[in-house]
Amino acid sequence: MSSKTHKLDFFYDCLSPFSYFAHLVLSRYAAVWPVELHYRPFLLGGVMASSKNTPPMMRPSARAKARWQAQDLQRNTTYFGAHDYLGMPSNFFGPDGPADKRGLARDFRVMRLLTAISMCYPTALPTASDLLFRAIHANPSTRDEHGNVVLDEQLFAGICAKAGVPVPDIPKLLEELASPETKQALKAAVVEAVKRGSFGSPTIIITPLGQTAGPREQVYFGSDRFEQMAVCNGWAWSGPCQGRLESKL
Amino acid sequence: MSSKTHKLDFFYDCLSPFSYFAHLVLSRYAAVWPVELHYRPFLLGGVMASSKNTPPMMRPSARAKARWQAQDLQRNTTYFGAHDYLGMPSNFFGPDGPADKRGLARDFRVMRLLTAISMCYPTALPTASDLLFRAIHANPSTRDEHGNVVLDEQLFAGICAKAGVPVPDIPKLLEELASPETKQALKAAVVEAVKRGSFGSPTIIITPLGQTAGPREQVYFGSDRFEQMAVCNGWAWSGPCQGRLESKL
Repeated sequence: MSSKTHKLDFFYDCLSPFSYFAHLVLSRYAAVWPVELHYRPFLLGGVMASSKNTPPMMRPSARAKARWQAQDLQRNTTYFGAHDYLGMPSNFFGPDGPADKRGLARDFRVMRLLTAISMCYPTALPTASDLLFRAIHANPSTRDEHGNVVLDEQLFAGICAKAGVPVPDIPKLLEELASPETKQALKAAVVEAVKRGSFGSPTIIITPLGQTAGPREQVYFGSDRFEQMAVCNGWAWSGPCQGRLESKL
Repeated sequence: MSSKTHKLDFFYDCLSPFSYFAHLVLSRYAAVWPVELHYRPFLLGGVMASSKNTPPMMRPSARAKARWQAQDLQRNTTYFGAHDYLGMPSNFFGPDGPADKRGLARDFRVMRLLTAISMCYPTALPTASDLLFRAIHANPSTRDEHGNVVLDEQLFAGICAKAGVPVPDIPKLLEELASPETKQALKAAVVEAVKRGSFGSPTIIITPLGQTAGPREQVYFGSDRFEQMAVCNGWAWSGPCQGRLESKL
C-alpha cells in the first residue's frame, strides 16, 4: 500500500542552474513528501520559443538586473547548499549569441541522451540526470581552462554506466541520440509541458494521484516556490537543505 | 545599546501585490531580525522606465504564463497568510492600457502622500503604508461594485489620522501631494533605488550598519527571497507567517 497522494512531474533542462538547484531540493524531499517524483527531461529552448519567452539576459532590463542577478545566484549557492556550483559556463551561448550552434544552449545532446534513457532505462534517469547536472554546473573536470563545459561521448558513456545502463548496451544507446524517435519524444515533452502551463525551466506540475492533467493540477515555475508548495499542500518543510542549515555567506 | 547589525531599506510601491506580501513578512520579522527597518516609498512606474523593465502582463510571454501566474498569486495568499487579499483591482490599468491616466498605475497620489509623510511625520510612515496597502489590496470598503479601487481625499485624511498625523495638520499635508518638494523627493527615491540596483517593486537593500551604499550591500527583488535572506545572514526563519503556519489550500 502506498502512502503517496500526488504525482510530481519535474520538467527540466540540465542547462538551467535553477533547475540544478530544484533537482537538489527534490532529491532531498523525494522521500519526505508523499509524492511520486517523475524526472521529465525537456528542452529549454523549445519551451522558451513555444511560450514566446526570452532569456532574462536578453531582455532590455538585463543591464539593470545585473547586480541583483549576480548576487542572487551567489546567495542561492549558499541557500541551496550547492557549494560545488561553478558559475555559468563561458560557452552557455556561443560567441555569436543565443542562435550560435557552438553554444551549450544549442547543444541538444544532453537532453536527447536523457530522453533516450527515459525511454529505454527509466530507472537510470534520476542518477544520469544528477551526473549531467553536475557535469554542467558543478564538476571542474568537465570545464576547460577558459570555463567552457566540454561534453563528449566518453563522458556520456561513463555517466550511463554509473547510472546503471548495462555497459554492452551503451554504444547503441548513444546512437539513439540522433534517432527520429528520440528527437520526437523530446519534442513531445516540450509540447506537453507548454500545454500544461510551462514557459521555462524548471517547471514542476503536481497532480493528485489517479487524476489526469486538468484544472486541479498545480503548476510551479523556478526553484523559489518550494516552501510555498509545502505550505499549500501541508507537506513538511525544513529549508532547502532539509534541516541541514547552511552557514553564513 | 542596540543589538541591530544591519539597515534594511524596503523600497515599495503600494500598487504592487508582491510588495504588500513583502510588507506583511517584514512587519512580522522587524522585531525578530537585527535590522533597522526603513520604509522607503518609491514609484513602480518610474523604476520600470528607468531600468527598461516591462510589466510581466505586457510581455509576449504573458499568455503562456497566465495559468501559472493566477495559481501562484492564489497560493501566495495562503503562503503569506494574506487571507484578506482581494485580487488585482479592475482599474490597475485604465481602459486604454498602462499609459491611461485613469488607471491606478498612473495615479501617483498614494506614493506622493507616503513621501510627504516620510518627510514631515516619519513615525507615521509604517502605519500609513500598511493602511494604504490594505486600501488597494485587502479592504472591501475601498472597492466599488466593479472591483475598482476608489481613492479620495477623505480616505487619505482618515488614514493620516489613524497613522498618527495630528488632525489639524492633515489639510496642509494633503496639499503637499502636489508640491514640487514632494514630487522631487519621490523622484529622488526612484533614482537612488535604481542606482543601488532596483528594477521593480519591492526592492530590499541590506547594508551593514555604519556603512554607506557600496559593494557590501545586498540587493533583493520581490517577495520570494526572505528565506534566502535569513539563511544567508544567519537570521531566524520560521515561514512567512513567523511560525503561524497557514492551512492547506
